[in-house]
Amino acid sequence: MEGGLLNEKIKEYKQLLENTLRSSVQNLDAPSSLKEAMAYSLEAGGKRIRPMLVFAAMDAFGKNPAHGVTTAAAIEMVHTYSLIHDDLPSMDNDDLRRGKPTNHKVFGEAMAILAGDALLTHSFELIGTIPDEHAGADKKIKLVTGLAKAAGASGMVGGQAADMEGEDKELTLAELESIHLNKTGRLLEFSVLAGSILSGADQEKLTILSRFAYHLGLAFQIRDDILDVEGDELALGKRVGSDTANHKSTYPRLLTLEGAKQALDHHITMAREQLGLTGLNTSFLLEITEMVATRNS
Amino acid sequence: MEGGLLNEKIKEYKQLLENTLRSSVQNLDAPSSLKEAMAYSLEAGGKRIRPMLVFAAMDAFGKNPAHGVTTAAAIEMVHTYSLIHDDLPSMDNDDLRRGKPTNHKVFGEAMAILAGDALLTHSFELIGTIPDEHAGADKKIKLVTGLAKAAGASGMVGGQAADMEGEDKELTLAELESIHLNKTGRLLEFSVLAGSILSGADQEKLTILSRFAYHLGLAFQIRDDILDVEGDELALGKRVGSDTANHKSTYPRLLTLEGAKQALDHHITMAREQLGLTGLNTSFLLEITEMVATRNS
Repeated sequence: MEGGLLNEKIKEYKQLLENTLRSSVQNLDAPSSLKEAMAYSLEAGGKRIRPMLVFAAMDAFGKNPAHGVTTAAAIEMVHTYSLIHDDLPSMDNDDLRRGKPTNHKVFGEAMAILAGDALLTHSFELIGTIPDEHAGADKKIKLVTGLAKAAGASGMVGGQAADMEGEDKELTLAELESIHLNKTGRLLEFSVLAGSILSGADQEKLTILSRFAYHLGLAFQIRDDILDVEGDELALGKRVGSDTANHKSTYPRLLTLEGAKQALDHHITMAREQLGLTGLNTSFLLEITEMVATRNS
Repeated sequence: MEGGLLNEKIKEYKQLLENTLRSSVQNLDAPSSLKEAMAYSLEAGGKRIRPMLVFAAMDAFGKNPAHGVTTAAAIEMVHTYSLIHDDLPSMDNDDLRRGKPTNHKVFGEAMAILAGDALLTHSFELIGTIPDEHAGADKKIKLVTGLAKAAGASGMVGGQAADMEGEDKELTLAELESIHLNKTGRLLEFSVLAGSILSGADQEKLTILSRFAYHLGLAFQIRDDILDVEGDELALGKRVGSDTANHKSTYPRLLTLEGAKQALDHHITMAREQLGLTGLNTSFLLEITEMVATRNS
C-alpha cells in the first residue's frame, strides 16, 4: 500500500476504534459514575498500538481490518484496565498518565479499581458480540482463551507481579526481558495473533508472526526505557527519570544508553526480517514497527 | 434422591471442586507469590454455593454434575476475586474474611489487587478448557458471555459501584433490591443458568430457573442482613453489626427484623414454587435453597 493511502487508512481505523470504544461503554446498563470512570481512561487517547496491530495483521492477510474492530476494542480495554490498576497508590502511585490526572486521582481509588475490573470483564463480553460471519464460535473461543492467557497470571498480571518483586533488586538482562515479555509483550503478541486468527492464518504464519511480535514487544519496552532517560515530558505526558528515581532495572541501566539503542535497532531489524518471511503484504505492520522504533510518546 | 445419598453426592462434588480450584492455580506458569495470593483466598473455604448451583442444575436435568466442575470453578474464581477487591482498604476495608485475615492483610494491597485481577482473568481461560464433549464452542461462548455480563458493569461490578454510591443514603426497598440483584444476585443466577446451558436446557426452562434464582438471590441477601444483626461471630468468621455501624441500608433496617424474616420466607417459598414448575427432579436445588434459608455463616 502506498504511504499516503496507508496513513489515511490508519486514521480511518483509529476513528472506527474510538467510536466502538465510546459506544460500547455508553450502551452499558450500569451506574453512570462507573461508566464515566471507564470512559475517562478509555478515551484518554494514545497511539492505540495494540488495536493497530489487530488491523495491520488482518490487512496483511488481505482481510478487511474493519472486521477486527470488536477484538481490537476488547484488547484496548484490557490494556486500559492494566494502566488504571498499575497507576494506583499501592502499585506505581502515578498521578499523571498521558498528560491527564490518573483515574484514581479523578474518581477515587475504589471507583478506579472497579472501573478497571469492569473494563477487563467487558473485554470478554465484547468478543462474544463479534458477528458470526466475521468469526464463528470456534474462533471466538480461541480469542477468549488467547486474551485470557496473555492478560492473566501467566502473562501481563504475572509480569506486573514479577516486576514488583524485582524492584530494588539488580536484575539480569534475562530477568528483565522475561518480565517485559510478560508485562507488555504478551498483549502486543496477542494483538498480532488475534488479527491473524480472525484472518484464518495457518500455524506456520502464526509462528512467524509470533516471533515478529516478540521482537516488536522488546523493541517497544526498550524504547520506553530510553524515553524515560531522554524523552520530552510534554510529549510523553508524564515525568521522565522516574525509573532512575525508583531504582528500577532498565535497559539503559544494564546496557548503557548507547547499548540500549543498539538493542532497539537489533530487535527492530529482527522484527522486519520476520515480516519478510511471511510472504504477505506487510506494509501496515511495517508502518507500526517504524512507529514503535521512533515514537516520542 | 434420598437425603443421605444427596449429602454424600454434595460432599463428593465439593471435593472435586476443591481439587480443580487447587490444581488450576498450581499449574499456572506464574510468579509463586502471585499464585500463593490467589490460592490463599480461593482455598479459604466457604459453602461454595455458586458451584453447588451449577452442579444442582445439571443434576436436575439428569446430567452428570462432575462435567460442570470447570464452569463451577470459573464462577467461584470470579466470586473470590470480588471478595478480595471488596475487602481492600479503599473499598470495605475489612480485616477478616471467613475467620482469616483478608488477602491484602497477608500479601499487601498491590498483590491483592493483582491476585483478584488474575482470578477474574483466569475464569475466562478456564471456560475455554472445558472438554468439547461436555460443551462445544457455541456453549462455551454462551458461558463466557453470560459470565462476563453477570460479573461486569451491568452486573456485579455495577452493583458494587451503586452500593458505594448508596452508602450513607436512605435507600428505598426497590433501590436496595436493585443493588443486591446486581451485586450478588446476578452471579447466583448465572450459576444456575450455566448448569442449565451445559445441560442443553430450552428457553422455557431457563426462564423458570432464572426466576428461581431471582428469589434465591434475594433470600440469600436478606439472610445475610439478618445474620449481621443476630448472627454468631464465630460461625460467621467476621464481626456482626458492621452494617449498622456503617449506616448501611439493610432489610432489617427498612422492614424491621421481623419484617425481614417474613420477606426471607416469602422469597424461599417463591423459589421452591418455581422449582415445582420445572417438571425436573430438583431435590439437589431444593437442598441448596434450604441451605440459603437457614445458613448461619
